Parts: sequence; C-alpha cells; structure tokens
Amino acid sequence: MKLAIIGWGSVGRALGRLLKSKRREYPFRITGIHTLRHGTAADPEGLPWSRVEAAEFGPRAASIEAFLDAAGADCAVELTTLNPSTGEPAISHLRAAFARGMHAVTANKGPIAHAWAELSEEARRAGRGFRYESTVMDGAPVFNLWRHTMPAVKVLGFAGVLNSTTKIVIETMEQGGGFEEGLAAARAMGITEGDGAYDVEGWDSAAKTAALANVLLDARTTPQAVSVRGITRLTPERVREIARQGKTVRLVSRGRRSGTGASLRVRAEVLDRADLLAATPGTSNLILFETDLMGTFGTVSVNPGVEQTAYGVFSDLVSLL
Amino acid sequence: MKLAIIGWGSVGRALGRLLKSKRREYPFRITGIHTLRHGTAADPEGLPWSRVEAAEFGPRAASIEAFLDAAGADCAVELTTLNPSTGEPAISHLRAAFARGMHAVTANKGPIAHAWAELSEEARRAGRGFRYESTVMDGAPVFNLWRHTMPAVKVLGFAGVLNSTTKIVIETMEQGGGFEEGLAAARAMGITEGDGAYDVEGWDSAAKTAALANVLLDARTTPQAVSVRGITRLTPERVREIARQGKTVRLVSRGRRSGTGASLRVRAEVLDRADLLAATPGTSNLILFETDLMGTFGTVSVNPGVEQTAYGVFSDLVSLL
Repeated sequence: MKLAIIGWGSVGRALGRLLKSKRREYPFRITGIHTLRHGTAADPEGLPWSRVEAAEFGPRAASIEAFLDAAGADCAVELTTLNPSTGEPAISHLRAAFARGMHAVTANKGPIAHAWAELSEEARRAGRGFRYESTVMDGAPVFNLWRHTMPAVKVLGFAGVLNSTTKIVIETMEQGGGFEEGLAAARAMGITEGDGAYDVEGWDSAAKTAALANVLLDARTTPQAVSVRGITRLTPERVREIARQGKTVRLVSRGRRSGTGASLRVRAEVLDRADLLAATPGTSNLILFETDLMGTFGTVSVNPGVEQTAYGVFSDLVSLL
Repeated sequence: MKLAIIGWGSVGRALGRLLKSKRREYPFRITGIHTLRHGTAADPEGLPWSRVEAAEFGPRAASIEAFLDAAGADCAVELTTLNPSTGEPAISHLRAAFARGMHAVTANKGPIAHAWAELSEEARRAGRGFRYESTVMDGAPVFNLWRHTMPAVKVLGFAGVLNSTTKIVIETMEQGGGFEEGLAAARAMGITEGDGAYDVEGWDSAAKTAALANVLLDARTTPQAVSVRGITRLTPERVREIARQGKTVRLVSRGRRSGTGASLRVRAEVLDRADLLAATPGTSNLILFETDLMGTFGTVSVNPGVEQTAYGVFSDLVSLL
C-alpha cells in the first residue's frame, strides 16, 4: 500500500521509523511527504528510506491536490497540527483524499471532532476506509476496540481523563509549585498543544469529547457544543487543600446519550485518590465506557509518547490493508 | 449457528437471556443443554426459548459425546465449573467438540491455563475456531483485543489485579473487619470459587496468570508452574497498618517473557493508593500489558457480574459467525 503523508513532525518521523522497521511483514511504501515549512517529496514508485530519514524534500507542492496527484498513493495519512476551532485544514485534506478514491488515516482530532459524520459518508461513497485511532489516547485501542471487538454493545456514555498538560500542572501544584511552573514543565515535556492555553482552558479535552461523542454516541456535534470549564481558576492553595483531604483534581471529559443527542461536558473534578479516574499519573490517560450489555469497562494508557501515536496510525494502516 | 451448551449455571442462564434478546440480529439457536445435575435437553432443530427458560431437561445424556451427537450443533459452549488442578473435565469436552468438527467457546479458564496450545492445535487441525474471552476479566476485551486490534505488537509482560474475592477480604479488613468476615462477604456476593480457599490461596490468580501467559507469552505453562503466595497470612492488623501509611494491598498477577519461557508469579503487593493497580474497587479488575511498540496500556472492568461473563461468550460466538 502506497502512502502519502501530510505533515512531518515528531509523529510523522516516528511513523517513518516504525514503517521502516516493519517493512518486511507490512509492505507499506511512502510515495509522498508534504510539509508546510520544509517542502514536498513525491515519487509514485516510492521514496527511498534514506531520503525519508534525511527529510530531503523539494519545493512545496502548489496544493494538497497537486501533492496527492503527484504521490499517486492508495492512502493519505493526515498528521498536520490542529486548528481547534474549525478542524481545518485537515478536513479539506481528508476530503481531497476521498475525492481521489484514496483511503485516509488521521492522527488529528479536529476532523473527528468537527466533521466525522460527513467525512465517514464521503469515505463510504468513495468505497474507501477512514481511520483515526490516534486522535484520542494515542495508539491505545479506543475506536478500534469498538470497531473490532464489542459486537451488539451500545455505548451509553463515557468518562475520560484525556489531557496530560492539565495533569502535569495539577501535580506540580500538589508538589508545591505554581500554575505557570506546571505549564512550563508540560511545555518542556513537549506535550502541550501550542502554548498550553488550549489545554488548560479545556479545549483539547472538549475536542476529544466531541470526537468520542461523534463516533460512539452518534452525536453530530462539535467542540463548541461541549460545556467546558478548564483548570485556569485552580490555585495552588486550593489544590493543596484538596490534597490534604486525600483527594486530587482531574480534568474529566464526560459524555452521555440524552433525549436530544448527547450531553457533553469538561470539568475539573475533585476525585478520591483511589478513584480510577484519579489513578492516571504523569501523562497517562484513562477512559471508561458505560454500556448496555457490558457494564462499565475501559482502556488505560500509561505515559504514552510519540511512538504510541505513530503506532495508532500504523494499526489503522494495517486494518486498511 | 447452532449451539450445544455444556453447564447451565448462572452464566449459562445469563447467556440464554442475552441470546434470546439479540435473536433477531444474531441468529443463534440453542440445540442442546447438558448439565450434570439437571439432565439434558437436545433437539437438532433448536430448543424453544420457553423450554430453555423453564430449564425443562430430560434424562442426562450418557456422555458428552452422546450429548454433542444428539444436539447436532456447530459450536460447543463450555460453561462447567472449574477443576483448578487439572482443567478437566472441560478440556475433554472441548476435545470432543473439535473431534466432531465443531467450533468451541469456553468461559472456563482451566483449559486455557492447562492446555491452550494443544487445544488450539486441535482446533486448527479441525479447521474450527476456539474462543475464550470470558476466562480472564469476564467480557472485557483481553484476548480479543490482541486477536483483533494490535497488529505487529509483541506482549513483553503483564501485571493484573484479577481476583475479586481477595479484594473484598482486604477491603473488609481495612474497614475494621476480620479475614473470615471478608471471605463470608465475598461468598455472599457469589464471587468466590467454591469456599474461597482457591481465591485467597492465590490459585484463581495463578490459573489466570497461566492462561494469559499461554496465550500472550507463548509460555506452554500450567498454574502449578506459577510462583504463588496468596493472602492467607495477611492479618487485619497488618492491613490496617498499611492503610495508615496511605497504602493498600492487592493480589497481583505478573508475567514476563524470560530466556527460557516466562517468569510468572502471584503475590500480595503493598501499593500506593494512587497506583493504577490499586484503583480497583469492589470486584473491579485491571490488567496492564507491557509491549514493544505500544508501551504500557491495559483494560479495566468496573464491578463486572455474570452478565458480563455471558457477554464475553456472546462476543466469542459472534466472532465465530
């Protein structure tokens, strides 16, 4: 399967390493890489691994359409950074892929949070696959869990601790530091989206909440429809007072089917230390699904990094093979 | 698909209810039910739901072989109770099914803990499927997770809190009760295996450890090869002393690939309250997989009951459809 990769940041490079290491068992070939800042490489016969590793790109293609046409791939892999308020330009990239009869995989939660139903319909009409496992909890099985392993089960709701930056900020305050110090620590770990405001104000969690609701609760919603309160009003004094009571704080995403669609919210919740949602140290994430036939169960991911995000994309690609 | 069910306890009856409620979307038909104490029912055309619900059985078939021949089913569903030290008679039941060219599903961990490799080979030779999702963590995705969603990933090891009885005993002692009181509480909840000795001595956890190791670590092992220490020497005084330090105790199953096969053990471990493995209240279970490509991630199941065990069997049946 030939791949046209859009965006070549840390996830793209990790995916490149993974594809190379598994090239004997899984015969993927990269036929194009397109970046905003470093130009474009495309060869329908496949780019040599040496060129991929050295990031030897030529002049930037005039448009995504021109890039996809030049790469002649079977599948587009969308790895650009998020525009949280619209899901663009990733949505347009995916549309361009389906319009060309290509499969598409994205690690960008914007399209899932803003336009999942429409994009799924476009993929269906094109007779192609659309995958997005890495958009929530990196490569840990969330969407593919439901796609492949839980027949006949209906998701009634979910609760998840899905944002790492806010956890680092809270942990820093629990240990005696300040809010900005925590944010700086998260930035130094490379886990913030941009300057971190998007994380601490709750919008990263809102986008993940909307993505989960669109796929699992048929919600046809957007992040703007999620009731969001971030952790910006949380003070070190308050966090330490909570800690003295044996409790902690987590930014929790909750979704639930309701009469009219889905009720969705993101809130900083005070949790008992022994609560499952609290047992998510560092950058670990946890989601619990409430279901009709299978009670409540979930997935946990312990301190994932860019390799796990790349693996989620890889597993999506394998499922399209 | 026609089903011959061996054993008709609480899981069997829950499975019967689930099959009936989903009969329009999933056309399973029960053509036989065989029990040790209440006799046998078999009709290759299908047993009426009314007869299944009323448990109207006739005289017990002379043997499992005679039962399977009379039921004329496509799949045997093994739900008998466990003989922990041998995995019998469930192993023989499954062999009889494969010998007749039937698929087989079991919720009984004995065969997986004692003879998974051999049974898988017999299924393969018969060209039939063999499924066992409910044997560890009820219906929560454990084995099917690896079967369906994690291509190219190798499990290096696992750590799980998989026994509910010991958790109830520990919680009872933390709250001021005694060991026997906790065991009685677990018995009253219907979650012990037999009188509970099997649970508190660690053998239930050892069987699950061996089952996981056989399937995920290619270990070809048995519960007897697991280094086991249960919680029988744990006193209320010690548990409360640990609680005063902000910690708790869990009976933890650990497995890890080693040079010669797998290193497997079950131990009561003192854990920080905020540890993921400690965040398993009541009958909740949690397993973490350590992997090569996907770091550490896992599955959690919150207070599962017999409905979840039945669902695990149902999901296995759907995957064989």
